[in-house]
Amino acid sequence: MTTRALGSELLEPFDYNPLTRVVYGPGSILQLGKLARDYGASRLVLFTDSGILATGHIDRCLQSLQAAGVATTLFSGVQPNPSSDDVEQGVQVAREAQADFLIAVGGGSSIDCAKGVNFVLTGGGTIHDYWGVGKARGPMLPLIVAPTTAGTGSEAQSYALISDAKTHVKMACGDQRASCKVAILDPELTVSMPRSVTAATGIDALSHAIESHVTTRRNSVSQSFSRRAFRLLSQALPVVLDEPANLPARGAALLGAHWAGAAIENSMLGATHALANPLTATYGITHGVAIGIMLPHVIRYNEPAVASLYAELAAALPSDAKFNRAQGSEDLTAGEVLACYVEQVVRQAGQPTNLLELGVEASRLHELAQAASVQWTGTFNPRPVDATSLEELYRCAFSA
Amino acid sequence: MTTRALGSELLEPFDYNPLTRVVYGPGSILQLGKLARDYGASRLVLFTDSGILATGHIDRCLQSLQAAGVATTLFSGVQPNPSSDDVEQGVQVAREAQADFLIAVGGGSSIDCAKGVNFVLTGGGTIHDYWGVGKARGPMLPLIVAPTTAGTGSEAQSYALISDAKTHVKMACGDQRASCKVAILDPELTVSMPRSVTAATGIDALSHAIESHVTTRRNSVSQSFSRRAFRLLSQALPVVLDEPANLPARGAALLGAHWAGAAIENSMLGATHALANPLTATYGITHGVAIGIMLPHVIRYNEPAVASLYAELAAALPSDAKFNRAQGSEDLTAGEVLACYVEQVVRQAGQPTNLLELGVEASRLHELAQAASVQWTGTFNPRPVDATSLEELYRCAFSA
Ligand SMILES: [Fe+2]
Ligand SMILES: [Fe+2]
Repeated sequence: MTTRALGSELLEPFDYNPLTRVVYGPGSILQLGKLARDYGASRLVLFTDSGILATGHIDRCLQSLQAAGVATTLFSGVQPNPSSDDVEQGVQVAREAQADFLIAVGGGSSIDCAKGVNFVLTGGGTIHDYWGVGKARGPMLPLIVAPTTAGTGSEAQSYALISDAKTHVKMACGDQRASCKVAILDPELTVSMPRSVTAATGIDALSHAIESHVTTRRNSVSQSFSRRAFRLLSQALPVVLDEPANLPARGAALLGAHWAGAAIENSMLGATHALANPLTATYGITHGVAIGIMLPHVIRYNEPAVASLYAELAAALPSDAKFNRAQGSEDLTAGEVLACYVEQVVRQAGQPTNLLELGVEASRLHELAQAASVQWTGTFNPRPVDATSLEELYRCAFSA
Repeated sequence: MTTRALGSELLEPFDYNPLTRVVYGPGSILQLGKLARDYGASRLVLFTDSGILATGHIDRCLQSLQAAGVATTLFSGVQPNPSSDDVEQGVQVAREAQADFLIAVGGGSSIDCAKGVNFVLTGGGTIHDYWGVGKARGPMLPLIVAPTTAGTGSEAQSYALISDAKTHVKMACGDQRASCKVAILDPELTVSMPRSVTAATGIDALSHAIESHVTTRRNSVSQSFSRRAFRLLSQALPVVLDEPANLPARGAALLGAHWAGAAIENSMLGATHALANPLTATYGITHGVAIGIMLPHVIRYNEPAVASLYAELAAALPSDAKFNRAQGSEDLTAGEVLACYVEQVVRQAGQPTNLLELGVEASRLHELAQAASVQWTGTFNPRPVDATSLEELYRCAFSA
């Protein structure tokens, strides 16, 4: 890859095709009915999960849709990390409803499930047929989503992550036609998250901002999203952990997670995600918990390759980030400042800081590293990784 | 307007509907034929002006279109500041060609003319019928544009600026359906600009970044575009003025002008443009020349209202901006740093720095201020302006 730069800007060629309208603001979920009607909905299926159903958010959605005169079928059976079975069920419901429009209100799972249903509903076959990039068959139904977590940024992406129901292999099914028409970002929907979910999803989003900023696929557009996301998330996360009802902070976290998702769409991710995925697959460790443990070590590992990029992010940290004030902090490298900042957020969140705490066995680090080394996402890490360096990163995180 | 902020981020509600794909890179104009075909072109009209026709850029466009098998009619008669007569002629050509697709290759004039033609061609009547917002009648033809200047950012906007052929009143005709499907940003197309055009368009773009960053309509999205544009333009302008063939700098200027246009689309402009327009209407002063004179004075006037926002921009200035190194510069306010930076670019460009040099008469400043006070764009200035304060701003700029 040729790197042409002017000052701090990377000026690689890019092709940026934004496909999602963003409607942001407290109470913006009340625009759902009007938006669905404006985009031509007459019979729609709304995807959500039982946890969200219990919050009352869905009542407000249904009222808005009813007021707009749109016939709505509710599918509230989405499971965490949705599988090909969830997609099959959703397709059946949508076929019976003769749906011409889809809506998802929930975390990344509900949004991914709706995207997966859209592939199969409009193109036939099973979700396995859409594993990869650009496999959609003809036009897809319009999709409006409203995330209730500030995490995956799935609403900014053309990918659906669906697990095979038998093998549990995660299939990434991506096509520009699967992108949402509208993402409604309403901070009020995120206030109901349990603290542990706020923490795990927020730390995941923070990692998306940091990882996407330095990948080998980064460009002027993706880095702008990464910087914007990092600034918002680094200001918001410490606040939402302490004051869950702080709406401006919830708004900043939600926007930050969204732009971080847009950054990924334009630049991919790195070694932190390659290392986290086997921990989730093998031990069932929550994605954002695994990310919080591995991210500081990957930042330190990457620093020799991307010190000036980390410096851009470190410069954007809020001036009251505590370790910044600590004596001698002026000697810290930018990567070390970033790593310390992430560790501080992980501690504030009450998440584990090493693998030992989570019951990971030292004897299995070698096998985990083998699994990590074949993760596609690792290939975009700015400093090359292989099974040996990934195993070393697991060891760094083992009892840190 | 309620201002909710977290840290330095403004978290006003917003509705951001990106409609334009951006294909950036040296040589990207060669993708024109394939892109036009992908978006369904079979018979298109390409709008340009005689100056661009002489550069050879259009030959490359026509070859690319021919290779893609798209029948092309050339309309090379676009005039600077296109009028309702230009639009009428373009409509006639497009009707005869039975066009199903439009392309514009040129400065803001060619792009605005193509947008204007699109309104009338698809909706009937005259361009006067579309003056205002959202006046399009039904769907419009797909439009792909490739700017050859780094200035107006028209390729990022849903507005066409068309003058009435008789009264010379500028009509802003805006509708989301008038937005470009694709903007091809090829820095090679901008290398042929005469130095005076590089200067005037570049300083206009710089003003778009600075003005849009502080308007009363600013929000998280528009400010992100403004910051990105300012960083790119402030690095690039001093370089392109000295080294016209420096492609990374040309690329940064082109991208900067584009994102500044996207910022305007999401936040409007301010008093600098309100002051510049009467100078152009009365004395025929080039837009970017009038802007270069007025902008430093507006920045100083606005500083009490938006000091912290100017500080964000000043912090993004390249570290080698010369006045920054000057003795005592640490005492300058952020607004003063920005104003000095603009003055430095204007001097480097060889543009006049006051109104007297341009033959403006002191006796007409009162009348000019009256005209400036009724400009719509002035209503979004962060510190309120009226005929009195605008006249004072003209006086500051008179023999500065
Ligand atoms: Fe993640
Ligand atoms: Fe302008």
